Amino acid sequence: MESLKQRILNEGRVIDGNILKVDSFINHQIDPLLAFEIGEEFYNRFKNARVDKILTVETSGIAFALCTGYHFSVPVVFAKKYKGINMSEEVYQSKVHSFTKQTDYIISVSKQYLSHGENILIIDDFLANGQASLGLIDIAGQAGCNVAGVGIVIEKGFQQGSKILRSLGIRVESLAVIDSFNNNKIIFREA
Amino acid sequence: MESLKQRILNEGRVIDGNILKVDSFINHQIDPLLAFEIGEEFYNRFKNARVDKILTVETSGIAFALCTGYHFSVPVVFAKKYKGINMSEEVYQSKVHSFTKQTDYIISVSKQYLSHGENILIIDDFLANGQASLGLIDIAGQAGCNVAGVGIVIEKGFQQGSKILRSLGIRVESLAVIDSFNNNKIIFREA
Repeated sequence: MESLKQRILNEGRVIDGNILKVDSFINHQIDPLLAFEIGEEFYNRFKNARVDKILTVETSGIAFALCTGYHFSVPVVFAKKYKGINMSEEVYQSKVHSFTKQTDYIISVSKQYLSHGENILIIDDFLANGQASLGLIDIAGQAGCNVAGVGIVIEKGFQQGSKILRSLGIRVESLAVIDSFNNNKIIFREA
Repeated sequence: MESLKQRILNEGRVIDGNILKVDSFINHQIDPLLAFEIGEEFYNRFKNARVDKILTVETSGIAFALCTGYHFSVPVVFAKKYKGINMSEEVYQSKVHSFTKQTDYIISVSKQYLSHGENILIIDDFLANGQASLGLIDIAGQAGCNVAGVGIVIEKGFQQGSKILRSLGIRVESLAVIDSFNNNKIIFREA
């Protein structure tokens, strides 16, 4: 998605040769017009799949999931994050490992909002090692849902996330794939 | 806003005579079409004010702030929540007391994303005691911004939040004001 890549080049900052800061338009300040374009692009890429619901995880996935749900006219569910296990029988839970923070956290979704046989499109802002997506896929599986695909705004293509997801037979669509940070310069994968 | 009130009547559940659960369409599952209508309604109510930026706090304010920002074509900033003080000089911070959870938390916004003289519209999903809004107003003040108003999806009109905000000279627009939970029945204030 060219407008997104341009924006990343203009405003993204590479820190420590590995971290991409895009908090001027993605995950602290958000550009709602770009978020809408992103939602429309996910719609165009997945419109031939059956999508009954959008699933994401708080916090920074919400804006893009919402805009995607708007274009599909389907509900959006965001998983909540916890530090510890919540012993409630009313939620599906999965443990997610964060390589960035070197810690585990629990994500959970109320059983009310995922139904057996529903087709779920997972949306998130970043894909690196794929741990958050795997947690959402795990939750969708517990609920008996089908995963229609995973839509990612920015993929770090030099990490293993999309390979792992695709090895599970899951369709992954990333709107911008970064191949490397070469001397803090952002190199996108050619489409 | 009639469509919102109907939805609250149809799907809202009153718990312990004081808590309103609307997590089927507001704060766990979100209806993106309703969120859009809500954004449009905030735009209609505040369009004569000058609004340069939308400010909210994670997590459940983000969807409505985003949709409002879309209609105004302005950026949306969400404050982040922390448990402890973050000693960074790069952020504005404010302490917020949660009466529900009987605990304090810190909200923060990067100094980059609020500029002196900007006109800020604060959006949130709920208004009860007004503590979160006061924290956002405090942060806007630290940045030298003007607060154009506070837009609230659901106000608990029997609590003090809107009185406190209005006593500071701040315009508050709530799309649904609940006057009481009478035997767990939701009673709206007449417009």
